[in-house]
Amino acid sequence: MIPRSQYRRAQAQATELFRLTGVALRREELDTIAVADFGLGELTQSGAQILTLVDTPEVAVKLIALFPYQTLPQHKHPRLGSYPGKAETLRCEWGVIYLYTVGEPTLHPAAHPPAHRRGTYTVWHEVALYPGDQLTLPPDTWHWFQAGPEGGVTWSFSTRATDVQDIFTDPEVERETVVFED
Amino acid sequence: MIPRSQYRRAQAQATELFRLTGVALRREELDTIAVADFGLGELTQSGAQILTLVDTPEVAVKLIALFPYQTLPQHKHPRLGSYPGKAETLRCEWGVIYLYTVGEPTLHPAAHPPAHRRGTYTVWHEVALYPGDQLTLPPDTWHWFQAGPEGGVTWSFSTRATDVQDIFTDPEVERETVVFED
Repeated sequence: MIPRSQYRRAQAQATELFRLTGVALRREELDTIAVADFGLGELTQSGAQILTLVDTPEVAVKLIALFPYQTLPQHKHPRLGSYPGKAETLRCEWGVIYLYTVGEPTLHPAAHPPAHRRGTYTVWHEVALYPGDQLTLPPDTWHWFQAGPEGGVTWSFSTRATDVQDIFTDPEVERETVVFED
Repeated sequence: MIPRSQYRRAQAQATELFRLTGVALRREELDTIAVADFGLGELTQSGAQILTLVDTPEVAVKLIALFPYQTLPQHKHPRLGSYPGKAETLRCEWGVIYLYTVGEPTLHPAAHPPAHRRGTYTVWHEVALYPGDQLTLPPDTWHWFQAGPEGGVTWSFSTRATDVQDIFTDPEVERETVVFED
C-alpha cells in the first residue's frame, strides 16, 4: 500500500529518469507510468516504475525506471497452459542495472537487496548492464535486479506479458499495487 | 548491387542518425548496421539501414534509419506454415516517418515514392509518425514508408522476423543486398 501522493511523486521521478535517456516519449505516455510497490510498502527500497509501450498478445515492450538502489524483487514468468511463459530481454538504456539470475553465484555482488528480505533472494549470478548491454532470460527463470547509485532505466523486450501471474520468491509480495488517498 | 564504399558510407550516415536519437547503442552494435538496397541499386531513393538489437524465435527489435526521403518499398510479412506472419509495431524515435498501409487512401500524401516505381505502390492510407508515435500492423498487411526531409529513425518491435521471406509489390526487388568491391 502506498499513499496517492507518493505514487504521484514516484511517477514524476520516473519521468525525470526517462527524460535523461533521450528516448522519445509522449507526454500522454508518461502519464501512464505504473508504480509497483509489490505490496511491500517500501517503494524506495523494493519497487519499480514501469512504462508499457507495446502490449499485444505476442509482444510487450516496456521501459522500467529504478531509483538509486531500488530493487525489483526476485521473480519468474511461469508457464501458463500452452504458453511457455514470458521470455524477456533486459537492455540497459541509462545508468546501471545489476541483474541477478541463475548460474554461478558472484563472489562479491555489487547489489544488496533490502537486508530484512535477504533470505528471499536466492539467485546470485550477477550481470552488470551498462547502457547498450542486454541479456535474454528464458521463460520460468528466477531473476531480480537493482539499480546503481544514480538509478537506472532498462528496456524489457518480451513475449506476451502476464505480469499479474509472475511468481515471486518473497511470500509477502503482492503484484497489484494498492493506492490509498492521503 | 551497391559498391562496398557506398555500403560503408551508408553505415556511417545511419550511425549519425542513430546518434541523434540518444538511444544507447554500443560501438560494436553500430558496426552491424545492415544496409538494404532491395536489389534496386538506388539506395538513396529505395533502401533502409537496419540495426537488429533482438532476434529470437519469438521477438525481434530493430532500429531502422532512413535518409531524407528514402523509401522502404511496399511489402508484407506473409504467413509461413503455422506462423501467422510477422506482426510489427513501428514507433518513430526521431525525425518523421510517413507510413502507408491499407485503408482509405490519403488525398494529398506527404510522401512520394520514386517516380519510376510509382505503380508498385498500391496502399495509400497515410499515418504520419512523429517521435513517440506508433502503429501496430497485423501480419500479412501491405505497408511502405518514407522519411521526411531530415530523415527518420523508427523502432520495429515485432514477432519473429522472417525478413528474407517478405513479399514485395515491386517484382524487381530482391531482399538480399549484393555488395561488390570497388
